Amino acid sequence: MRISELSATTGVSIPVLKLYIRQGLLSRGVATASTQATYDQGHVDRVRLIEALRSVQDMPLAKIHDVLAVIDEPPADILTATGRAVAALPPYVNEVAGGLDATRQVVEGIGLGFLPDFPATTQLAAALEALDAAGLPADVETIRRYAAPLWQATRAELAPMSTMEAADAVAYAVLGTALYEPVILALRRLFHHALLTHDGEFAPDSGAGQAPDQ
Amino acid sequence: MRISELSATTGVSIPVLKLYIRQGLLSRGVATASTQATYDQGHVDRVRLIEALRSVQDMPLAKIHDVLAVIDEPPADILTATGRAVAALPPYVNEVAGGLDATRQVVEGIGLGFLPDFPATTQLAAALEALDAAGLPADVETIRRYAAPLWQATRAELAPMSTMEAADAVAYAVLGTALYEPVILALRRLFHHALLTHDGEFAPDSGAGQAPDQ
Repeated sequence: MRISELSATTGVSIPVLKLYIRQGLLSRGVATASTQATYDQGHVDRVRLIEALRSVQDMPLAKIHDVLAVIDEPPADILTATGRAVAALPPYVNEVAGGLDATRQVVEGIGLGFLPDFPATTQLAAALEALDAAGLPADVETIRRYAAPLWQATRAELAPMSTMEAADAVAYAVLGTALYEPVILALRRLFHHALLTHDGEFAPDSGAGQAPDQ
Repeated sequence: MRISELSATTGVSIPVLKLYIRQGLLSRGVATASTQATYDQGHVDRVRLIEALRSVQDMPLAKIHDVLAVIDEPPADILTATGRAVAALPPYVNEVAGGLDATRQVVEGIGLGFLPDFPATTQLAAALEALDAAGLPADVETIRRYAAPLWQATRAELAPMSTMEAADAVAYAVLGTALYEPVILALRRLFHHALLTHDGEFAPDSGAGQAPDQ
């Protein structure tokens, strides 16, 4: 298809498609004449993926480039892959004014190993500082209420990786990290609403309280 | 204190403080001379709160203004308050290309009532569309793995509200919605890392699987 059709199919304007190509997010079409190129379903899928990352995570194009690079050329080590992907996701925290002592206490308090160089550690530190600045509790006891439930959910979401090829597992881990986050936040907001309306009828229909693999 | 001290105490530059005042996020200091004003601890706290919302949620000032307005003049109804706060939080979704049918199916599938006009419903719809665009599962079964764990966590976090004054409860709900989100995302990323390193030793130290109020 021509670029006009790629634009019509994806709903993304031609100037933006050309921007994606210039920035290396989207590969050039196959040249069919000096001023024409042809695009295929792979381009359509790629544009949809870029739009997905833009729409729900509001990521800058340079960060989307980082995420796509991990998927396009998966590092042999999946930990390297997810580490790079996590660093590309918001919030973008460069430094934490108060250091990492409080974060170490929380992380170790919920039973995790402390990883000062893993991007999520700095992200957690910034989040704890923000709670503190707003006068909301950020102690181990408070954070613990999220730990056990989230541990259940993360185990369930990583389970399918055990049967995947390495490259598929990288793509799943990287895109899953980015794209299930807005689901989690939206569900939490809906649950708040249900709780505040005292909707006593509601109880999630999934064997609440059981670990998914039991 | 003078604006220079407010700046030194909070680490926010004087031009940015003046911007916050012009945009109505921060109240003017009490005028002590034609070109001087004095600021107090309330201003310090407010600047720290604004910075907290900016740092971890990367919210535009106009949206921070919306959140602060809910806290400054709490609506009588806490549902109105949280609805306005949720609408001020990212992701900012205006429309959903594919409509809300799939979202209704998921929401009802996990046992919740469907609220087409609540902002989190549109946010969930955008999140589900993004998953679909990326080729990741977005069906009821997949979303269900988050529902029961998150329901536990949200019950635990709203529990303290039952003993609060109305205005405090609004501030807690509004700021808590915004500021525990990055904690949840950072914990999930840390758990992924722990799972991928096969850290079999880890199990969150909080009575996993039990509802918090049992």
